[in-house]
Order: sequence, then C-alpha cells, then structure tokens
Amino acid sequence: MARLSPSLDLDELIADTEAEILRLVGDGDPSTVGVYEQVRYHLALDGSGAPAGKRVRPLLGLLAYASIAGDYRRALPGAAAVELGHNFSLVHDDIEDGDRERRHRPTVWALHGVPQAINTGDMLFSLSRMALHRLSDLGFSDAKVLRLMRLYDRTCVALCEGQYIDIATSESGDGISVELYFDMIGRKTAALIAASIEAGAMLATDDDEVIRRYRAFGWALGLAFQLNDDLLGIWGQERATGKEPTDLLRKKKTLPVIYALERGGPDDRARLHELYAGDDLAAADVAEVTSILERSGARDYTRDEARRYRDEALAELDAAGVVDGAARERLQAIIVSVISA
Amino acid sequence: MARLSPSLDLDELIADTEAEILRLVGDGDPSTVGVYEQVRYHLALDGSGAPAGKRVRPLLGLLAYASIAGDYRRALPGAAAVELGHNFSLVHDDIEDGDRERRHRPTVWALHGVPQAINTGDMLFSLSRMALHRLSDLGFSDAKVLRLMRLYDRTCVALCEGQYIDIATSESGDGISVELYFDMIGRKTAALIAASIEAGAMLATDDDEVIRRYRAFGWALGLAFQLNDDLLGIWGQERATGKEPTDLLRKKKTLPVIYALERGGPDDRARLHELYAGDDLAAADVAEVTSILERSGARDYTRDEARRYRDEALAELDAAGVVDGAARERLQAIIVSVISA
Repeated sequence: MARLSPSLDLDELIADTEAEILRLVGDGDPSTVGVYEQVRYHLALDGSGAPAGKRVRPLLGLLAYASIAGDYRRALPGAAAVELGHNFSLVHDDIEDGDRERRHRPTVWALHGVPQAINTGDMLFSLSRMALHRLSDLGFSDAKVLRLMRLYDRTCVALCEGQYIDIATSESGDGISVELYFDMIGRKTAALIAASIEAGAMLATDDDEVIRRYRAFGWALGLAFQLNDDLLGIWGQERATGKEPTDLLRKKKTLPVIYALERGGPDDRARLHELYAGDDLAAADVAEVTSILERSGARDYTRDEARRYRDEALAELDAAGVVDGAARERLQAIIVSVISA
Repeated sequence: MARLSPSLDLDELIADTEAEILRLVGDGDPSTVGVYEQVRYHLALDGSGAPAGKRVRPLLGLLAYASIAGDYRRALPGAAAVELGHNFSLVHDDIEDGDRERRHRPTVWALHGVPQAINTGDMLFSLSRMALHRLSDLGFSDAKVLRLMRLYDRTCVALCEGQYIDIATSESGDGISVELYFDMIGRKTAALIAASIEAGAMLATDDDEVIRRYRAFGWALGLAFQLNDDLLGIWGQERATGKEPTDLLRKKKTLPVIYALERGGPDDRARLHELYAGDDLAAADVAEVTSILERSGARDYTRDEARRYRDEALAELDAAGVVDGAARERLQAIIVSVISA
C-alpha cells in the first residue's frame, strides 16, 4: 500500500494516458488509415497541437489507483479505456446535438459527414474495449479484468440510458423535472466518473469496502462537476473558464432553468415558458432570465446541491480510510476545487 | 464430444436465442423504458409479430458449438452477443445509408429521428457486451470468457474498418477496386460470421487447431454469403428470395458491377461509367447494365468466386475433423445451400 508514484505531475499522467491511447489508434492497414485519422483528430492526438479535453476521467482513475497502490502506471489501460469511451459519446453527442464545433475546431461530422462520424464514434467505442485487454498483459488476474469489464459494460448501458432521457426530453415540449434531471445526469455524467474512480480502486485493491467508498466518492463528484458546469454555463466568467457562458443564449435546459420552471413563482414560470417557447434568446432576454433564476432561488439551489455533493465526495474519500499521500492529496484538492461558480 | 443436442429444430435454436436476448432488453427504470422499446422494435422482439431477420449468425455459432460439444444451450450468451452486435451495426447502417425501411417496417431513425437511432445503436452495442457476462454464470472459466471477449472486440474494430471503407468509397467518385471490395467485405461481413463460428468452437473445445479451422470455415462462408447476396441483388427471383432484385436500380456497387467497371471491355466500361454517373437507373438502363455484366464475365466471375469460397468452407469444416452428427450435418447443409443464384 501507498508506495508512491515516482512523480505526481498531472501533466505526466496525462502524457502517459495519451501514449497508452496512441498504442491503440495508430494506422492499421492502408485501406483503413482514414478512420484512425478521424479518431486521432477527434482526440486531439493528431499532432496538430490543438487543445485536448482536460482528460479529467482518466486522471481521476489514475489518482484513485495511486492513492491506494502507489505507482499509477499499471492502471493506464483502464484510464485509456475510460477516455476512449467518453470520446465515443462526445462524437455521437455532437451529431445528436447538431454541434459543428468542439474546442474551436470543426466536429468530426462537420468535417466528414454524419455517416463517417457515426462510424468513427463506433470505432472509439470498440477501441475503448481493446484498451482493457492490456490489463492482462500487465499481470492482472482474469477475474479482475473481467470484473472491470463488467463495470465498464454496465456503465455504457447507463450512458445510453442517460442519453435517451436527454434526447427525449429535449425533443418533447414538456421539458424535464428536477427529479428526472438528476436521474439523467446520474447516468450520463456521474456514472462514467464513478466508474473511472471505481476501476482505479478495483485494480488497486481487493477490499470491497474501499472500492464501494471510491465509487460513492466518484458518483458524488460527478454530480458536483455537472452542477458546477451548469452554474458556469450561466454565471461563469470567460476570463476564468476560457468559455463564454452561453447556456441561456442556446436555451440549454440545465438545473437552474429546470428548477425555476418547476419551482419559481407563477409569474416567473409563465414568463420563462414564454421566453423558452420562442426563437433564440436575445441579450436582453438573457439578462431577464438570469434575474428570474436569481430571484427564484435557482442559482442558490444549484450551488447548494453542488456543495452538498462535493462534501459527500470528500466524506466518502475520508471514509475509505486510505493512508494519506500525494495522490490522495491531489484527489482531495480536485474535489475541493470543484465549486468555482 | 458430440453428445447431441436434445433437438436440432432450427426454430428452437432461434427461439432460445431470442429468449436469451430478451433477458437483456427488458424495460429498465420507468425513465428509460423508451430506449428498450426501440431496441425491441428493431429486433422484432416487440410482440408485433413483425418478421425478424434470419438470425443466421447466432444459428451458425450454436451449430458450431453443438457440432463439437453437443447441447447448444451453453453457447446461447455468445449467440445473443453476436446477434445484438450485428443489429447495432444495422441500426447505424440504416442512418448512414439513409434507408427508411427494413423488412417492410420503418427503420428506427425514420420513426424516432437520427439522434435517438444513433443512441439506440449504441445501446445495442452495449447490451451485446452485457450478453457475454452470462457465460461466467454458466460456468465457463474466466480465461475462456476473456478470450471470447478479445475475439469479439477485435471483430467490432474490423466491422468499423469495413464500414469506413464502405462509406468512403460510396462517397468518392472513384469507386472501389475488386481488391478493395474483398478487403471491405472481409471486415464488414466475413469477420462477424467467422467470429460467431469461432466463438462457438472456442466455447466447445480447447483444441486450437479445431478452433482455427472453424474460423477459416466461417470466414470463407461469410464471403460466399456476401457474393451470393450480390448475385441475388441483380439476378435473384423475388418468388424465391422474397426480395426484389433492386441493387441495379439503387446503383449499389456490388462485385459484379465493380468487376465490370474494372475488367470489362473499354466500351462497356465507358458505358457503365456513364450510366452510373447519372441519376437513378430506369428499367431500360437496368436491362442494359445486366447484359453488360453478363457479357463482360462479371456474373460468371462472381459465381465462381462464391463457389470457390463455399468449397473452401466445406474443406475447412472437413479438415476440422469433428465427428459427424446432426449439428455438423446442418452446418454442411447450410454451406452447400449458400449458392442459390
């Protein structure tokens, strides 16, 4: 226990995860090079220097492993699988949402069309599974690898369930209740973050109580992340986040809006319905919605819920009772920093 | 070896496969019922009595297992996984090809839109993985289950590679060479049929030579199936196949057309290019293309190749040297019957 990793430079963890992914996404035969090029382009591993995602899921998995078992490198195949799986869902989400840009570059479907992009997402899904087989080469027992696969497969089912709710409620005029929103983000966001952290713990120990605590910590952290994103999408400062807060302009129904639509005063609810029934919101509308959200308590509610889940994540990590060390401190710092809005 | 299954009524094998699939695709929580309804609809397991596919992939896997080890029922999870995986690719293919109908019913995307259909395909993919875990409950060793998963994961990668070639060559004006066509159908069609049969053998025996022969038999059979489909799509009789031969009307580039475009006489090639560059083919054009294909030797070539692969499949099954029995006879009958055009 707690032999510490030679280094806990997070950039190094990310670089090692990317190297692990690159083992899987190199060119195959000449006839199929194009699909691997699309995969690397989406992952920002095409040598273009384009900014990648934050790789937060693999990072959490590696830190979870390292906080229990020391050197994170044996957990890299799990980290690669989670990042590839997350990116399969992003490629398909971009088509489903009609988003033409991601991180200031055209999305795969915008560049190569919907048919190729569907297929490239499927390829990322398939490659995420291939990643896990290298755990056997690293000496993990068959039972352990299978247990990880079962976790991963259940998580993919949950992702698709969450995505179903998301699409169904976006398309229907009825909107979504606060309760259903939590149901959805549990499956769509918390499930994969929880799985990544649970997988890290599962590879590091056979202690089921520790594994259960890590999963609970990951689940709560995933919800806190999502609620913080919801806050930043409305009240974030571009200076701080690098992103404009465009959720209201895009009429995205995140928790503050859903809360106000369900629990605001009758006049505010009527006005919100009116604004969201029309075309895109103008700047003046955005200001009006923002003040409705503040007045109805939607902002406070969302922030309180985010903090509650953050504290739950901290408590679960504490309760897991692993010895202190650099990786555990990193995890704690990530949890503490989650509420920025 | 060769304890024979209590029954080899193929309808019973199909019914048991469907029951195995239904264990996985029942309603989950109330909030996610819709996605499972779409899954069951696509699989024609929605109680509507709509005609299902032929379930040929699970059938071949079960017969492969039974031909070596007797009672097929222990191989049902593998059969379910293959059928679910095949259907994930069909749901996505229907979007990619813009097909609004499959087996005389609207496709999932035509009914529920592209976003839900992409997600329902992803769900079928995820559920195909869940199917395999039941092999552990049936007492197969972890090593065996993992080996099967590795085969299955590699096959999914091959499917996506084949689909990439298909989309890329359909979209480009250059068309596809005979060589690349075989490359494509190997990945897109033969790989999954070979995997299904290899998986059946793998579950039934530890004899790597037998497993290798079964895989080779499946690969050759998969190619023979595809080439026979290509022949039926042009020269099939609706009376016999239940399908109109519409490949030429739809300007689908299957082997006979690709062969004639590459290897026909200069005038025929020029005329074919002209016809395929324009709008949809009229009935008179179809007749003209058909005679070009016959005169250029494209029909004979395709039939000869189909027969060559059929004979290779038979030879590999023979060489595997498993004892004769009802399941082996069934396999032999399926191989022999493959060339119908």
